[in-house]
Amino acid sequence: MKLQVAIDLLNTKEMIEISQKLYSVVDIIEVGTPVIMLEGLHAVTALRKSLPNSLILADTKIVDGAKLETQYAINAGANIITVLGVANDKTIEDCIETAHKNGCSVLVDLIGVKDVATRSQEIDEMGADYISVHTASDIQSEKNNPLQDLASISKVVKNSKIACAGGINLSTIHQIMEFKPDVIIIGSAITSNEDPYKVAETYYKLIKEND
Amino acid sequence: MKLQVAIDLLNTKEMIEISQKLYSVVDIIEVGTPVIMLEGLHAVTALRKSLPNSLILADTKIVDGAKLETQYAINAGANIITVLGVANDKTIEDCIETAHKNGCSVLVDLIGVKDVATRSQEIDEMGADYISVHTASDIQSEKNNPLQDLASISKVVKNSKIACAGGINLSTIHQIMEFKPDVIIIGSAITSNEDPYKVAETYYKLIKEND
Repeated sequence: MKLQVAIDLLNTKEMIEISQKLYSVVDIIEVGTPVIMLEGLHAVTALRKSLPNSLILADTKIVDGAKLETQYAINAGANIITVLGVANDKTIEDCIETAHKNGCSVLVDLIGVKDVATRSQEIDEMGADYISVHTASDIQSEKNNPLQDLASISKVVKNSKIACAGGINLSTIHQIMEFKPDVIIIGSAITSNEDPYKVAETYYKLIKEND
Repeated sequence: MKLQVAIDLLNTKEMIEISQKLYSVVDIIEVGTPVIMLEGLHAVTALRKSLPNSLILADTKIVDGAKLETQYAINAGANIITVLGVANDKTIEDCIETAHKNGCSVLVDLIGVKDVATRSQEIDEMGADYISVHTASDIQSEKNNPLQDLASISKVVKNSKIACAGGINLSTIHQIMEFKPDVIIIGSAITSNEDPYKVAETYYKLIKEND
């Protein structure tokens, strides 16, 4: 299992500062959608320059214009880009094709997908590198973690790696780890903590000990 | 009927140059998703500075983090922001609430929605300012315009304005105009033309004459 830290609420300068603190105790650094919306993929370019050897995911949440947008993220230095599972099949396939031609990986985010088991099977067959269950931050007060979706897709996904995101914290991570997802994505539980390094290190050790 | 030009493939400087050419023959200028992905909402800020009195739509395609991302786009100077119809209801509602508190409007983009009639009724009831049928550019070779979806939602939407996007050009606009959508969104048929002003003026006159 790998630990991905999602950095969502900061501008480029702050995002790089926290990434510099965290890179040694996380496996993947995610430049979150709000950061990309605010700063553009320039944020990814700057992070790549700052941390040339880190695995960087650009949370592009592509839903159309797949070839162009995937290429933009690759040019910026992303190792992994994201596309929505609710997008048309052709969009997801174009993302995968463009990414794989360039040594980049694709994470398909199931946010908004109603039937996650059926859709994740389809996406698995398209050759996605990662499929991510994702409880939207906007609904975490009503549905507090992605456990049920994780259980559903774990039964059916054969080739893609499984990632899991959405409000994961120290009280829920043990249940999540029982399903052994390939990537556990943690955002504010790390980035909003007073000592993000210390808490990331705690999650990192926990994940590696249970692997 | 209003004409919205979607500017998708350019960086901030080029986007402003073409907007300066077009603003007098379009009603709404859309800063497209690829521009925002590349340059961030700084592109919207720059366009607002360049054209202080134009109606600017930021094609943010929000799917989570609604309050934050809507606020970012408002801060940049957008008059209209977009959210995906496939997003959770709470996300769409949060976009609408945040936008309306700030004198901004919300366009809900039906891209990826399977049952557009049912979903557009739900979105209409949420109080969206605009609901847009949208044939994804990635599938325009298989489904070349949004006419059927436009027909479906025109029957059921009561309060929201209707917008229509996706590969519209001079050979399809007459069929589109028969449904009298409130906004017709045209992208590459204008922006990729050798003389974008002239072609935008043609569409603008055509739309106003048939209104």
